[in-house]
Amino acid sequence: MAELVVVGAGLIGTSCALALRASGVTGRIVGVGRSRPNLDAARTRGAIDCGYLFDEPWSSELAGARIVLVAVPMAQNRSVFAALAPALDPRSVVVDAGSTKQDVIVAARATLGVHLPRFVPSHPIAGSERSGAEAASAALYVGRQVIVTPLPETDPAALRLAREFWTACGARVASLDAARHDRIFAAVSHLPHLLAFLLVDEIASRPDSTEYLANAGGGFRDFTRIAASSPEMWRDIALANRDALESEIDVFRQALDALSLSIAHGDGVAIEALLERAANVRRSWGESGVGAIEGVPAI
Amino acid sequence: MAELVVVGAGLIGTSCALALRASGVTGRIVGVGRSRPNLDAARTRGAIDCGYLFDEPWSSELAGARIVLVAVPMAQNRSVFAALAPALDPRSVVVDAGSTKQDVIVAARATLGVHLPRFVPSHPIAGSERSGAEAASAALYVGRQVIVTPLPETDPAALRLAREFWTACGARVASLDAARHDRIFAAVSHLPHLLAFLLVDEIASRPDSTEYLANAGGGFRDFTRIAASSPEMWRDIALANRDALESEIDVFRQALDALSLSIAHGDGVAIEALLERAANVRRSWGESGVGAIEGVPAI
Repeated sequence: MAELVVVGAGLIGTSCALALRASGVTGRIVGVGRSRPNLDAARTRGAIDCGYLFDEPWSSELAGARIVLVAVPMAQNRSVFAALAPALDPRSVVVDAGSTKQDVIVAARATLGVHLPRFVPSHPIAGSERSGAEAASAALYVGRQVIVTPLPETDPAALRLAREFWTACGARVASLDAARHDRIFAAVSHLPHLLAFLLVDEIASRPDSTEYLANAGGGFRDFTRIAASSPEMWRDIALANRDALESEIDVFRQALDALSLSIAHGDGVAIEALLERAANVRRSWGESGVGAIEGVPAI
Repeated sequence: MAELVVVGAGLIGTSCALALRASGVTGRIVGVGRSRPNLDAARTRGAIDCGYLFDEPWSSELAGARIVLVAVPMAQNRSVFAALAPALDPRSVVVDAGSTKQDVIVAARATLGVHLPRFVPSHPIAGSERSGAEAASAALYVGRQVIVTPLPETDPAALRLAREFWTACGARVASLDAARHDRIFAAVSHLPHLLAFLLVDEIASRPDSTEYLANAGGGFRDFTRIAASSPEMWRDIALANRDALESEIDVFRQALDALSLSIAHGDGVAIEALLERAANVRRSWGESGVGAIEGVPAI
């Protein structure tokens, strides 16, 4: 009987497995993934005891599993849930790790049936611009926040178990309404990711991009670090959180238009007032919470 | 006779002084600044031998000075040059350290008179979101690039001396046309700085901004690090490089509009293609040059 079945043995899933191991969990950990070399890497690193490709017969591993972690690219949540549902053990708790929550709840409602009360939507605020089991780290969640967005029908015991799972991984757990979660993360995560991707792509599309990139410095480096993130993952996020993201893009575009006008008018007072407000906020944020943590990047 | 007169003993100027000291230069280094505590900090750190406020009688220190480094907020370049010109020694080489170059060349042409051939416009691609002599570092320029944008009338011997000065600070020196420089840096530095300031200010302006910021993670942290930079410096850059910046904002806005449309249409193929192009470029850039340097941030 597995302590943990990780469906999607990428950066996120494998890091959970490594973190559980590091916390002293000795039970069986099973990984399911789409690439044999990646599963082998997860096993070599001691994250999983056994790895299955998706089309191999892994459903028997679900019997008695304590936690089933679904950590696949978000567009695949629905089909993974549908595959899980018939074989899920009535004692297992299912958690996901996606960056948007309304979308995964819709998928779970459509597919999990009687298991729905034991599904705890979760979003670990941790990640990296690198992908795969090789990039995983037992420390990925240490000191990070995991947001859970329980449903009205979520079983309190399942919620408790999911919280214990994330705590064992080293994280702090907070709870939010799913719609509120999606709005907040559209602003503080999804929009900046897209802006970073956009800036890099726009500069790279120039015939003389080499000269531009040769002159880019540390500001560009940090601003665009997240533009090296998984395109598949971020495509799914952009689509899953479309409505909130569109609102955020609109608001940002209006702010950009206003700044552009200040620059065109040579309005140094307005420009400096904006920069001053932002710098003050960013400096005090930087001295607290995630802003003060150096080292492992969290997304 | 001073080896170096630093007019503006902030992060940039004081770091040059510390770097020269670290390279073994033992000659006199004089600092001129607008705050006594900052000058005292520069002296305590061993960067300067003597510090003057702007309204103190420091012009006698210019006699025989080898290098006069003007490292003041860019809007003050013109008045500093005008103050320098009557007292400049005909052997001294003047360098600046500003992030835009056409603007400082206009100021120099208007004020330096016969000294113009010994002015070498310079832009060290190094900095920090922190300011002042306390934040200065002898290592700030090590491995960084300094762009010089000489004029047609620049004296080759002065150019050589300016290059030696930056090399002694630990930098590599490259040469660019001033207009080309300003266009490139509008794209790879000035625009991302403004986007980072904008995002922070826009989120901070919400009545419930505290909850947004409490949920911001490492992506937000790195994307917005440069939003803690000096508001005065970045106001001056936005105004000095207005034309190039407006072109860049227009181009970026078009790219944002196109992405917004792809999201509205649910066009996952177009979105992923963009993200994939950007991620590939960012990853290979990250493995070379500044992208691969960790540690002291460069702006």
